[in-house]
Amino acid sequence: MIKVNPNFSKLMGSYLFSEIAKRESAFIAAHPDAQVIKLGIGDVTMPLAPAVVDAMQKAAAELGRAESFRGYGPYEGYAFLREAIVANDYAARGMDIAADEIFVSDGAKSDTGSFQELFSTDCTVAVTDPVYPVYVDTNVMAGRTGAYDDSAMGYAGIVYLPTTAENGFVPEIPAGKVDLVYLCSPNNPTGTVLRKPELQQWVDWANKTGAVILMDSAYESFITEDDVPHSIFEIEGAKTCAVEFRSFSKSAGFTGTRCAYTVVPKELMGVDASGAAVSLNDMWMRRQSTKFNGVSYVIQRGAEAVYSKDGKAQNAEIIAGYLSNAKIIKAGLEDIGLEVYGGVNSPYVWLKTPGNMKSWDFFDKLLAEANVVGTPGSGFGSKGEHYFRLTAFNTEENTKKAIERIKQLKF
Amino acid sequence: MIKVNPNFSKLMGSYLFSEIAKRESAFIAAHPDAQVIKLGIGDVTMPLAPAVVDAMQKAAAELGRAESFRGYGPYEGYAFLREAIVANDYAARGMDIAADEIFVSDGAKSDTGSFQELFSTDCTVAVTDPVYPVYVDTNVMAGRTGAYDDSAMGYAGIVYLPTTAENGFVPEIPAGKVDLVYLCSPNNPTGTVLRKPELQQWVDWANKTGAVILMDSAYESFITEDDVPHSIFEIEGAKTCAVEFRSFSKSAGFTGTRCAYTVVPKELMGVDASGAAVSLNDMWMRRQSTKFNGVSYVIQRGAEAVYSKDGKAQNAEIIAGYLSNAKIIKAGLEDIGLEVYGGVNSPYVWLKTPGNMKSWDFFDKLLAEANVVGTPGSGFGSKGEHYFRLTAFNTEENTKKAIERIKQLKF
Repeated sequence: MIKVNPNFSKLMGSYLFSEIAKRESAFIAAHPDAQVIKLGIGDVTMPLAPAVVDAMQKAAAELGRAESFRGYGPYEGYAFLREAIVANDYAARGMDIAADEIFVSDGAKSDTGSFQELFSTDCTVAVTDPVYPVYVDTNVMAGRTGAYDDSAMGYAGIVYLPTTAENGFVPEIPAGKVDLVYLCSPNNPTGTVLRKPELQQWVDWANKTGAVILMDSAYESFITEDDVPHSIFEIEGAKTCAVEFRSFSKSAGFTGTRCAYTVVPKELMGVDASGAAVSLNDMWMRRQSTKFNGVSYVIQRGAEAVYSKDGKAQNAEIIAGYLSNAKIIKAGLEDIGLEVYGGVNSPYVWLKTPGNMKSWDFFDKLLAEANVVGTPGSGFGSKGEHYFRLTAFNTEENTKKAIERIKQLKF
Repeated sequence: MIKVNPNFSKLMGSYLFSEIAKRESAFIAAHPDAQVIKLGIGDVTMPLAPAVVDAMQKAAAELGRAESFRGYGPYEGYAFLREAIVANDYAARGMDIAADEIFVSDGAKSDTGSFQELFSTDCTVAVTDPVYPVYVDTNVMAGRTGAYDDSAMGYAGIVYLPTTAENGFVPEIPAGKVDLVYLCSPNNPTGTVLRKPELQQWVDWANKTGAVILMDSAYESFITEDDVPHSIFEIEGAKTCAVEFRSFSKSAGFTGTRCAYTVVPKELMGVDASGAAVSLNDMWMRRQSTKFNGVSYVIQRGAEAVYSKDGKAQNAEIIAGYLSNAKIIKAGLEDIGLEVYGGVNSPYVWLKTPGNMKSWDFFDKLLAEANVVGTPGSGFGSKGEHYFRLTAFNTEENTKKAIERIKQLKF
């Protein structure tokens, strides 16, 4: 039989959200009358903005007429969308990003997962702990790690950077050699942010050591505070050390519609086996044109409409609604004396479990006694233990109901 | 600086279709009045079927209403689409494929490119020569080859299986050890097919040696002859040795709409480092759920409509139109005494260049003297030299005009 990629067997079998779904189903089966409220998975619930729906319908109609039909589009995305991205997300904030530094894709998950393919397998990778699992799992599959260590709750070879209440959720610059670091701000899962001085330290370190920062900014549209950078490219020197991932999933409710983009500056270089500098922008173009064929025209027109006047106004209202839910969660939990983080520049609220409860024990208690589903912090890494994530993506009514129920619990 | 994947530098710089585009642009710049007809790239030109447009518009509207909004869908695709695929493409032809063996994706290029990630990097890969470049390039990027050898026109370590007029375009079973073989029928670029006895030999060989066949069936809907299998799963024993890639790109004009699917039978196994059998269906699910987040709901509803009564009738008419163009090309070229292959079960016509002309010389002559763009066979591999591809994807009017012009040429 054919030999499979030996790295897949290092991956942990049970995925966080499938375990949550399993416990949830078991509870509902045993308590069919319980009105379970889900504040668990980070999925949006509000309908798409009318401007986006209109644009997709119009684009679908275009494809149905001979004179406006379009076949294969550019691998990197249509210029109309890349130019709208540059104008609205970069130029409008004073950043100098060019349209040929933008690569449109089907999701930030695909891109954060695949970007590591550009690097040597012996690169050392650093991630925060807790962390969005995709960064780690894709490096495991690529062979950049050793086995999973149950007691350490991590893979050998990965540098884990604790981000907890103790350090204000700001990861420390690694002391040893790191080639590739994944950062995420506003953070999934903690809902906390990295501010300019903190990001500047990371950029300076990366430029000094030759490391590359893979910056996940999928939650950028939830930023409310003035001193929180919307992009790593607001930081001086970032164009020679950073890649940024953005998504329409959370900014415009595209989780089921699928569109995102990645910014790879032309100044960003790596070094090949002969010691020559090579452009990561060129390499990503080569990767995308070989293993990808672009995003649907219909969807790209929908994404373009996110930047229209109506689209902006409609989505701003949706985001404001989610942020209002986050406020309700945060205030409600603080009312009962819990330690709460995030929820200000993020749809995620990250709480310290009362009485140092284990994350999964807190999950079980919340499900059984308040019929509320959240996400155990330990599912995101060892340093997520004794934390718990609630999301603001449900309706206002359900969010209020869930918080009222939680406030009745005895801890 | 960070060390990049050293395998990228092995990739040949100039991509076939960019070279074609370059020569075409240069010609048009020098001859602005020439009416150039493109029978080059394999891209569809007919508008989407009305049933597909309607379904996408309806789905977009659904996402715009709170009560029917959908967020993240299943990684492997919605059951409604996977069940329609099973019923129409497999059960209707007597094949026993289950819905959980179907993985919906954004394109057969993505899947034929990424499936190799499941295998050990020391696997030996075989491809036909000529070949669709994605199979080769993705294995180069993954490190399964040595350097490109200019004189051999191929990468060290890849087993090339000649498919030419001499062997009736049927690749010979490899004598040495091969772990993974890419086959494509109806073939891109040659337009020729593998029939049941030929495929049975491949399946028997794979089951005997433990090899895996990656079967690209993206052009299945163009099959007109009764004895040509529509799927490798019509062949006894295929479920223990084969994966099949299908696409809506050519069957329903989805090149710009983006939807495809891959069939990974549950019986199909590989072996891990400990010698244990592992399911490739499980591994592909793990890969997709980690590096992909599913296809847009809007697009999946469009793909589902391909299987509706109206969708089937509308697309059958479009395919018949392309096949009629292929017939015009084939008959016209035969009229002037050229050796012509394909074009019967395929939108591609593969011709032997007259007087043993080099493929690129024939390209230049066709462009300069008939103002027709085709694809040089040598762009698909060393054994494509002295061949040339014309596609049936233009309009009937342009196809006829192009052939009339070619018939006037002196060879």
